[in-house]
Amino acid sequence: MNSHVNYSDLTMSYPRRRSALRERLRELQLDALLVTDLLNIRYLTGFTGSSGALLVHVEGDERSVFATDGRYRTQSQRQVPDLRRVIDRSRPLRLAKEATEAGTCRLGFESHVVTVDGHAALAKIAGADLLVATSRPVERLRLIKDDTEVATLRAACAVADTALAGLLADGGLRPGRTEREVARDLEARMVAAGAAGPSFETIVATGANSAVPHHRPTDAVLCRGDLLKLDFGALVDGYHSDMTRTVVLGEPAGWQRELYDLVAAAQAAGRAALRAGADVRNVDAAARNVIVHAGHGEDFVHGLGHGVGLQIHEAPALSQFGVGTLAAGMTVTVEPGVYLADRGGVRIEDTLVVSDGEPELLTLTTKDLVVVPCLR
Amino acid sequence: MNSHVNYSDLTMSYPRRRSALRERLRELQLDALLVTDLLNIRYLTGFTGSSGALLVHVEGDERSVFATDGRYRTQSQRQVPDLRRVIDRSRPLRLAKEATEAGTCRLGFESHVVTVDGHAALAKIAGADLLVATSRPVERLRLIKDDTEVATLRAACAVADTALAGLLADGGLRPGRTEREVARDLEARMVAAGAAGPSFETIVATGANSAVPHHRPTDAVLCRGDLLKLDFGALVDGYHSDMTRTVVLGEPAGWQRELYDLVAAAQAAGRAALRAGADVRNVDAAARNVIVHAGHGEDFVHGLGHGVGLQIHEAPALSQFGVGTLAAGMTVTVEPGVYLADRGGVRIEDTLVVSDGEPELLTLTTKDLVVVPCLR
Repeated sequence: MNSHVNYSDLTMSYPRRRSALRERLRELQLDALLVTDLLNIRYLTGFTGSSGALLVHVEGDERSVFATDGRYRTQSQRQVPDLRRVIDRSRPLRLAKEATEAGTCRLGFESHVVTVDGHAALAKIAGADLLVATSRPVERLRLIKDDTEVATLRAACAVADTALAGLLADGGLRPGRTEREVARDLEARMVAAGAAGPSFETIVATGANSAVPHHRPTDAVLCRGDLLKLDFGALVDGYHSDMTRTVVLGEPAGWQRELYDLVAAAQAAGRAALRAGADVRNVDAAARNVIVHAGHGEDFVHGLGHGVGLQIHEAPALSQFGVGTLAAGMTVTVEPGVYLADRGGVRIEDTLVVSDGEPELLTLTTKDLVVVPCLR
Repeated sequence: MNSHVNYSDLTMSYPRRRSALRERLRELQLDALLVTDLLNIRYLTGFTGSSGALLVHVEGDERSVFATDGRYRTQSQRQVPDLRRVIDRSRPLRLAKEATEAGTCRLGFESHVVTVDGHAALAKIAGADLLVATSRPVERLRLIKDDTEVATLRAACAVADTALAGLLADGGLRPGRTEREVARDLEARMVAAGAAGPSFETIVATGANSAVPHHRPTDAVLCRGDLLKLDFGALVDGYHSDMTRTVVLGEPAGWQRELYDLVAAAQAAGRAALRAGADVRNVDAAARNVIVHAGHGEDFVHGLGHGVGLQIHEAPALSQFGVGTLAAGMTVTVEPGVYLADRGGVRIEDTLVVSDGEPELLTLTTKDLVVVPCLR
């Protein structure tokens, strides 16, 4: 299986993204933007190293510059062939110096990324007056995924689906295994299916542990009768998939099936409300109301979902405290959960692409309650 | 094998670390320090979640407060039983508000961590005049590892040694395998030996790839005659081990053995210079001079080493550009390398504990040139 995206498509998208950013710079009346967030740099250039800075000039790529240190000379040559590159240990400062010397008047910086110390160092070079704080201009672009990004997320979600299907088919959730064994098994299957690794710390929580929203796998043993919660994802070409399924080991007790049906109904309501133009709070409310009406409002202790992409958690937040409306091309999770302390919990989570009509579902594993066969 | 550290020892060390920080706050004439770096919070409290803030009050733990969000209510209760806890989504702001209301006059913040936006939000609450930038006060403490930390690093290094020994014994470096396979194998062995995972992206670089200092494993196939560089480490209880070994597949060519002997001599010189009181530049120079005198100065493209602990790269930097002197209890790597483009490279790296006498070697795998037997 080749889950990877056509590389030439990808190379095409970087100049397009920088061009979209330039429009934003013109609106902000900036001569250039100093990008120091590594994921934003990756988004704009394709560079995957751990040290870099990027100056995007409003006038075009001819005046834009990428900087990294000596360790990434070869890699940056390959990944960022279309921009001027400088090798310098003091990356952002070097770019700020170049920009200032080239007559840049208004130099934007990422004020949610640059630290107080970093700003002081930049101000020494560029002058504090020239530096203009910006409000996540690159993240704004990243909110709406382009075709390459959606294709990569689709591939990442398929890897997670494949891994879970294999785990189930091979009896990987049999009683007697530990949470940790299951987590490692699932992760190994994702790698085998093409992931660079898990997209976050895999959650495997069995029995009462399933009531802990962000439980870390322990040596707790899977037992017949347990609710078993699996929250996991695959990392493919830098993009993160995210899916939660809760299964039951052996025949479900009445309360387990009721709990499952409740969360499944809430999740369906959340998905139904997911549409371009919807207020994020209304999407959260659509799912939350189902749970509140069933008397479990207090047991749904987190937001409904979050954006996913180059980060496992990114904008928009689908929550009671979220702000804004959805737009076509956003990729988000819908993941209500109800957690009954000391008994067990259920969470069901999909990753979806928002559109003007029905959202595209990227995580395709069934949401019917999976009953894992157990020997008596 | 139980590589883990006695938990009661660990719980003891957090109050001791906060108490050491208080001394520093008194020197800085601060009423309290707002700690927002997650690793610094972990160091001071044992909390391992992804969302937290800590106010360390100069007057004692009775006036100190830990904040996290609702997801970590249970976990923080368990991990931070000895401090007052508040559950609040706007963690640092809540703590700043409490501190201000309680009459704190000089509130320190971590100016290398707090962003320009974060500072503006804090200033709105506490008043810009009350906020005092501090220069990494917690990192200063972290420079000198306490017994618990050294024991954990020792365990992490032992896991990496065990994994490599198993890989060699089982013929895991045989020609025909790919770099990626070897990397995954090594990582799985570390997990089996007790690691939570690799401590950074495992580097496996064979043949000409070994000349790329930070090569990422590819589908390149190991071939007889290759230099094979393995740079990897184990993550144990949050601490990172770091070791590089370069082996040769089959009988070494003359130039390979020469290159190896040169780097081994440089590494030994670096270790010999590693002692409390030494200037970090002199330690770098001790190793570098060996390579420069052999005419390969240009091919040693990075610093000699770096601190390791809760981060894979932390202070001190042993490099030409480093500043400061070593002290007993620092844990650092010594890792010279010589890279011959399109031919191959050798790097040899240990993790060591600085002392007043000879440093303690934590990575115990041999540094004799390992010749991997290959069938003709």
